[in-house]
Amino acid sequence: MVPERTVERLHRYCRLLNGLKQAGQETVFSHDLAGLSGATSAQVRRDLMAAGSIGRAKLGYDVRGLLKRLREFLFAEEGDNVALFGIGNIGMALLPYFLKYRPGLRIVAAFDSSEWKIGRVFHGRECLAMKQVEPVISEKDIRTAILAIPASAAQAVAERVCAAGITGILNFAPVFLKVPADVWVENIDMGVVLEKVAFMARQRIYEESKESFEIEVGD
Amino acid sequence: MVPERTVERLHRYCRLLNGLKQAGQETVFSHDLAGLSGATSAQVRRDLMAAGSIGRAKLGYDVRGLLKRLREFLFAEEGDNVALFGIGNIGMALLPYFLKYRPGLRIVAAFDSSEWKIGRVFHGRECLAMKQVEPVISEKDIRTAILAIPASAAQAVAERVCAAGITGILNFAPVFLKVPADVWVENIDMGVVLEKVAFMARQRIYEESKESFEIEVGD
Repeated sequence: MVPERTVERLHRYCRLLNGLKQAGQETVFSHDLAGLSGATSAQVRRDLMAAGSIGRAKLGYDVRGLLKRLREFLFAEEGDNVALFGIGNIGMALLPYFLKYRPGLRIVAAFDSSEWKIGRVFHGRECLAMKQVEPVISEKDIRTAILAIPASAAQAVAERVCAAGITGILNFAPVFLKVPADVWVENIDMGVVLEKVAFMARQRIYEESKESFEIEVGD
Repeated sequence: MVPERTVERLHRYCRLLNGLKQAGQETVFSHDLAGLSGATSAQVRRDLMAAGSIGRAKLGYDVRGLLKRLREFLFAEEGDNVALFGIGNIGMALLPYFLKYRPGLRIVAAFDSSEWKIGRVFHGRECLAMKQVEPVISEKDIRTAILAIPASAAQAVAERVCAAGITGILNFAPVFLKVPADVWVENIDMGVVLEKVAFMARQRIYEESKESFEIEVGD
């Protein structure tokens, strides 16, 4: 089992390598990837080793070879089918985003419980009714679900999709989901994240003024 | 300096307590908050202590008192002014989200570099031109910025807003920002997050089938 932080960083390296390849760069050193990704060189080397890649001393990594290796490690050859639940503000933003930037992640089904949305097409994707959840997940071999639905509905939908075969959930609902142990849940709570950033922004200013105060006192 | 994970969990408790208060519940135990938030009881108690709250043995915490204390600790009395950069898919989703769910986080200014957007109103917010960045950040006392702009523009905008007084950035651009040490950056890369969930979803299935294979072999 590769640790989640490693998986996250490997995806970042993959994207960086793609940029380097497009810029015509042939080799890269762990410290280059470190500088671009915010990790340390040692961490980069450990991460790449977890994906089965070892750099050559003084020569670094071959950009094309490393990118190929990482892609094989991280991505399903046939791509991943994803189901979106909730075509609201967040869901509507995600549909074109993945269409444009992530061809390997296909949102192949979008569900909503609002009567007026069902049957309509949003960013090229027809809104399906919730009664179609189980057959569609099974037919399209979907393992990943995005929940962009209200907190009040999230737990029930999570249980239903897990029972239907989903093993990974990206949850935007501001609620802690109880799911079977073999299901991976990643939470993004936009409100909490921005509140945290605002808190840290204030704390930085506070810490700064405290520090300058302490220096004055010490004089 | 309160650690970031603690700050994040305190925000979660705050939201849970709000729900409990609205449901008319008067007291709460650390293990209740633990069960609802996915933390352990000991962690809940440590977190709340960091915010200056100590529970009473066998009586638990007073819901209203604890909520008041956490709010004082986490939120600026006058609320936080936030600037949004980029009125694209993500930006357009965030504007109504915070308007509706987070009255304490006010997106008081929204910027975009597209000529046709400037001067138009999006979800009640007029799109401002980039030349207004410095005066608006200063006039409206904005410390927090959301970057929902393309990767190619993010570093330059980050440097500019930091120079203008921003100390906290929520960055949706898929790029590692280099900012002064006193600026807090929180990255949400939608693509990387969903790729990670898809990877974990596949890995779960793989681990499962491997386990059952091993059991068969062991028979």
